[in-house]
Amino acid sequence: MKERVYSGRQFFHRQKNNEVKRLDTVIKNNSITPVEAGSIVTPKGFCAAGIHTGVKRYRLDLGVIYCEVPASSAAVYTLNKVQAAPIKVTKDSISKEGKLQAIIVNSGNANACTGTKGVEDAFTMRQATAEVFDIPERYVAVSSTGVIGEFLQIEKIVNGIKKIKALTQVKFDAAERFNEAILTTDTINKRACFQTTINGKTITFGGAAKGSGMIHPNMATMLAFITTDANIEPVWLQKALSHVIDLTFNRITVDGDTSTNDTVVVMASGLANNESLTDEHPEWDQFVSGLQMTCEHLAKKIARDGEGATKLIEVQVKGAMNDEDAGKVAKAIVGSDLVKSAIYGTDANWGRIICATGYSGAEINPDTIDISIGNIQTLKNGMPIPFSEEEATQYLGTENILIYVDLHLGDGYGKAWGCDLTYDYVRINAGYRT
Amino acid sequence: MKERVYSGRQFFHRQKNNEVKRLDTVIKNNSITPVEAGSIVTPKGFCAAGIHTGVKRYRLDLGVIYCEVPASSAAVYTLNKVQAAPIKVTKDSISKEGKLQAIIVNSGNANACTGTKGVEDAFTMRQATAEVFDIPERYVAVSSTGVIGEFLQIEKIVNGIKKIKALTQVKFDAAERFNEAILTTDTINKRACFQTTINGKTITFGGAAKGSGMIHPNMATMLAFITTDANIEPVWLQKALSHVIDLTFNRITVDGDTSTNDTVVVMASGLANNESLTDEHPEWDQFVSGLQMTCEHLAKKIARDGEGATKLIEVQVKGAMNDEDAGKVAKAIVGSDLVKSAIYGTDANWGRIICATGYSGAEINPDTIDISIGNIQTLKNGMPIPFSEEEATQYLGTENILIYVDLHLGDGYGKAWGCDLTYDYVRINAGYRT
Repeated sequence: MKERVYSGRQFFHRQKNNEVKRLDTVIKNNSITPVEAGSIVTPKGFCAAGIHTGVKRYRLDLGVIYCEVPASSAAVYTLNKVQAAPIKVTKDSISKEGKLQAIIVNSGNANACTGTKGVEDAFTMRQATAEVFDIPERYVAVSSTGVIGEFLQIEKIVNGIKKIKALTQVKFDAAERFNEAILTTDTINKRACFQTTINGKTITFGGAAKGSGMIHPNMATMLAFITTDANIEPVWLQKALSHVIDLTFNRITVDGDTSTNDTVVVMASGLANNESLTDEHPEWDQFVSGLQMTCEHLAKKIARDGEGATKLIEVQVKGAMNDEDAGKVAKAIVGSDLVKSAIYGTDANWGRIICATGYSGAEINPDTIDISIGNIQTLKNGMPIPFSEEEATQYLGTENILIYVDLHLGDGYGKAWGCDLTYDYVRINAGYRT
Repeated sequence: MKERVYSGRQFFHRQKNNEVKRLDTVIKNNSITPVEAGSIVTPKGFCAAGIHTGVKRYRLDLGVIYCEVPASSAAVYTLNKVQAAPIKVTKDSISKEGKLQAIIVNSGNANACTGTKGVEDAFTMRQATAEVFDIPERYVAVSSTGVIGEFLQIEKIVNGIKKIKALTQVKFDAAERFNEAILTTDTINKRACFQTTINGKTITFGGAAKGSGMIHPNMATMLAFITTDANIEPVWLQKALSHVIDLTFNRITVDGDTSTNDTVVVMASGLANNESLTDEHPEWDQFVSGLQMTCEHLAKKIARDGEGATKLIEVQVKGAMNDEDAGKVAKAIVGSDLVKSAIYGTDANWGRIICATGYSGAEINPDTIDISIGNIQTLKNGMPIPFSEEEATQYLGTENILIYVDLHLGDGYGKAWGCDLTYDYVRINAGYRT
């Protein structure tokens, strides 16, 4: 298989003021268009539902995505060596044929550190879902998020599963209810929908995600579910997903550190009837870009909804020795509590940005680093340059903060996303469990 | 040279309740005794001073340690690839003979990211100090801490250096004034003093340190200066220091990530007149333990004085495959913002502790992990066990929090230190620069 690079470098050009800017036209240029009202049920073949089982006091706490045909499926899981029980079950299901028809997700309890009883409970969730939808158990994935170390209230959940099938017939608000059912400390629903054309057929991608503990994103459970009607075999779907994850969801985590439950699953119904996709297909890039846009959109929503966050921070690094180094620098900056605190305080503290650059592990030359905060350049060739503090403070008062770093060493490019560090982060995390 | 391990394992024994406890008798057992009122000027041959030059508005901002003889010296510096100008000067001095007679330190300005002018200024500080004390320039080390990216007010500093020699004659409060002169956002002076006996001679260690931005300790400037009157050649002093640093100051940082200015310097006057120390000396362990106690004491003070901190957190890990793995787990836990927030909120959230254990990079088996918070065991063989929430909350309300993790895989042992994450951390860092 050919190695392709989707570094996103094509999405940028150099402005005359030496600043890298996102092209608004990128999506159109790549013939990938957002669908404003779209969701996980927009691709052909999918329905969804959310229900209240009583694990949480008031909010919806159990969701399902169902596909009318067995869908090619792929998944990526947490790298944490402590993995929750549902991950074992989902791995087991996908390992059989690479096909899924249903994903059952509960929130409020992560079913992690729950030993053999926890694994039994997760298998019970799978079995109950298979029975209710009358599909083989191997076509069911299980996912959980919430508190660690407590046993599931499995009866409540099984009762919920029995009732949830009927709800998947209700089209109105179905995706919204699924989204709501998978949230924990999230404050907003996170969905995405993009379309593109392959073999003259419209291919749709839908996505739903949860995740909110973002100051050390590694420790927040991050769940994302992507649906598409593209026709693609599981092996190619896995290849595309693994590639895209590295440039999107892994760019809102640090060093591959992840929670006990992190999972991204993609299901492809094939109902768009395009020629089956492989990396030899002339429109393979189109497919991967569509998947990437969907994942990036969800990843940014997760970052923006970081616990207590008031701002989305995007770091773009160019001029690195290679894309990997660029990613390291971007992640170090966006993961720095000092940078995050400064942005919360609207303080253009570029010293903390260069400091993070220096310890990122990437190859750098301190004397060739340029840093800009939005349009405001603060460092050129490693030396501070005068800038208007007033203008900087004004910019940092907005909700979307862009930090540009140019290392001037090569053409490596990468992005990462995070959020500011606020009083509310501490408030939320000082009392989450109790 | 023989490889010796000072893992501190000898400092612990197993209690009947299966809990690892620090022995209060450790210091006495090792014949290393704390000197309550001691400081950097307690070892024979040293004096110190602190002065206000006007770089800071009110507080002391320039300090010096002076030794009446050229002292064997060793140093360890930041691993950050962006290194401040004074580090270049100190490296240059020590590289000549491994001897120092004076260390000049300013606070309020880190002289980092200041290009060739910054390096010139640091050399000017060295030259001025050499002239005032009438010693060769190669016997002077230079250190700075404070804001990054602004040029030193070098005239004010040189004027201060001219006046500071006279102050080193004043014995009263000299070490206190030096300590105060090197602080930034620190809230307490950090000093240490320990004594031991080698060849029947009393050997004294004194230490002074600063450092406070501890939520991501890597990004806070940490300076530590150790004095001793032991007789030891520079090469052995460096060997001892490098070893001890790994078990003390590096256990309050994460992954070797350090600020642009971090420096630890040790000076040995030799005036105790013991036989020159090498690792073949029968009391070499005694010397290294004394140095370790001094560094550990300072490291813990730095951790406790983390910005906004209200508590010191000590994590002890045993049963790892090796000491390195134990250190990784201890550092991952103590570096976890979620753990730190939970401790601030007096929430015995062991789920976050096992989560950090899982992503630490160390070899673990999720099913053999025990966790205790103080005397309260919360996890046994990877499974939660009932405990009194009330008792746990009460314990977490105290100022010194101990977390014990036993991996049950081998006999690797390690410790790490940190502090809780509070509202005040955010307040301090949202507005440090401005």
